[in-house]
Amino acid sequence: MTSQQAAQFLLDHDNYLILTHLRPDGDTIGCAAALCRALRQAGKTAHVLPNPEATSLFTPYLEGLLAPEDWEPGTVVSVDIAAKGLFPENALPYLPRVDLAIDHHPSQEFFAKETCLDASRAACGELMYDIVKQFCQISPEIGTALYVAISTDCGCFVYGNTTAGTHRIAADLIDCGIPVTQLNKRHFRTKSLTRMKLESAIIDGMDLHENGTIALAAITLDMMARLQATERDAEDIAALVGQLEGVKTSVTIRELAPGKCKLSVRTDPNDLNASHVCALLGGGGHAAASGATVEGTVAQAKEAILDAIRQVKQTDKE
Amino acid sequence: MTSQQAAQFLLDHDNYLILTHLRPDGDTIGCAAALCRALRQAGKTAHVLPNPEATSLFTPYLEGLLAPEDWEPGTVVSVDIAAKGLFPENALPYLPRVDLAIDHHPSQEFFAKETCLDASRAACGELMYDIVKQFCQISPEIGTALYVAISTDCGCFVYGNTTAGTHRIAADLIDCGIPVTQLNKRHFRTKSLTRMKLESAIIDGMDLHENGTIALAAITLDMMARLQATERDAEDIAALVGQLEGVKTSVTIRELAPGKCKLSVRTDPNDLNASHVCALLGGGGHAAASGATVEGTVAQAKEAILDAIRQVKQTDKE
Repeated sequence: MTSQQAAQFLLDHDNYLILTHLRPDGDTIGCAAALCRALRQAGKTAHVLPNPEATSLFTPYLEGLLAPEDWEPGTVVSVDIAAKGLFPENALPYLPRVDLAIDHHPSQEFFAKETCLDASRAACGELMYDIVKQFCQISPEIGTALYVAISTDCGCFVYGNTTAGTHRIAADLIDCGIPVTQLNKRHFRTKSLTRMKLESAIIDGMDLHENGTIALAAITLDMMARLQATERDAEDIAALVGQLEGVKTSVTIRELAPGKCKLSVRTDPNDLNASHVCALLGGGGHAAASGATVEGTVAQAKEAILDAIRQVKQTDKE
Repeated sequence: MTSQQAAQFLLDHDNYLILTHLRPDGDTIGCAAALCRALRQAGKTAHVLPNPEATSLFTPYLEGLLAPEDWEPGTVVSVDIAAKGLFPENALPYLPRVDLAIDHHPSQEFFAKETCLDASRAACGELMYDIVKQFCQISPEIGTALYVAISTDCGCFVYGNTTAGTHRIAADLIDCGIPVTQLNKRHFRTKSLTRMKLESAIIDGMDLHENGTIALAAITLDMMARLQATERDAEDIAALVGQLEGVKTSVTIRELAPGKCKLSVRTDPNDLNASHVCALLGGGGHAAASGATVEGTVAQAKEAILDAIRQVKQTDKE
């Protein structure tokens, strides 16, 4: 379905329930908020299904948009959900009856009756902008939700998925009167003191291998306790060590409990496939970003992951 | 002078020497490289005066563009230089004979015969784009230099100076075929180990004032020596402390020599005008980002800047 057809579909139906994905990010929440507001502006009834995992970073954008309990929708739309396995538990009852899926993931599983997919987009928010601008004026509130969706998915225009089109949509949204400076400050330029101290501790404790091409960093229970750090302070921290100059493979080891560690592996996928490495430890993911959970101390986890990396490098060489 | 008039001026003259500012950043170097290449493409002779302080982060963009020693220019153009005090020592002989200054700083001192100033621009690179596109095709090399100028001055589209126009120019430059992913990786997603350690040391040594709304951080000569840090490791480090949650005014104090400190002040301009604060210490800049150089130790510089902040806050209140 093209964005024109999706817009027409949305005008032709009513009583919308909008679904977001597990571990919700800015793209799924921003798209849901933008679509819900746009539909309401077009005279439709629309609500977003509450997502129990939504963090305080994103919940403000859903204020006033959440579906009342036991409300019976006429039309179900999923946004930014690629796979059946990414439905939150409270969304599962709607899985067999999704009328329209709007998405940008190449791994889209086509679980819905109709799908509007554009895998060339940096964010589902770009596609959502194309859809909603066809049937409504982009208000500052809708523009804000779309900007959050787009900017968070491209790291504020820094990731490789950013295109000329991404920038042009951002420009249009800024022209709609969104508070872009405050949004950027909130999502990209604010760190808690604890987060900063946690980053310092990680860098100070990091060790390098193979001529500085492999970096191993650890977040121990002791570090978390000493800094009184919360989950929010540790959010998305696996990206930190990968920024180090010369590093091609970075591993962040999070001590979950004594004797249990979660590994987050980030690689240059042209150099090493992270999912192959994690598969050796019972995990998986994408070529550039994968994870695994292992039994053992941090030191044992380091040994295990270094072994796995060397093994995959050896196999790939042969 | 408008950008149209500046373009005409550039076509009417020849034998250009292009000057960049002290402690050169991506904007001044990127503008110089773009202008030099554009002029050469238009059949002119053009060189950039070597800037002894240019770091390896930016020198590659000037490759093949530097003026031979003792070359006698016909026309002198300064780019992104706001004040006489920002001329590098080897550029001082040209100060009395700058024919055209192209700049975006509101604090421009009008030292040149002609000035093309647009203080509404996030980067001088935006204005430079407007000028050069009028007389040349933007090649990937020119586009790269302009993208470096613009993106580094707005923190890759995250700072408050970013406008819809900034995004539209970025889109146009991406359409010119610039290697945007590599440029973003190089300038925004790569840190040296020394840089990471320097950031840790700054965070560990930072102190907070006025209920955590003012953060003062120092980079001492001793820290730089202990970490064997270079200028490149300290590039644009003034943005670091301002990210701290709750901080409205951040000051990064760089000890230049025993008894001499450079202050970089970043503020929420709705809360405090950074250029007013720095003006009290003989400096200047923008409302959200300004600087000053003061005599004294780091401790004395801290006292001086806290006094200046309180004084401006008091004056603004009255």
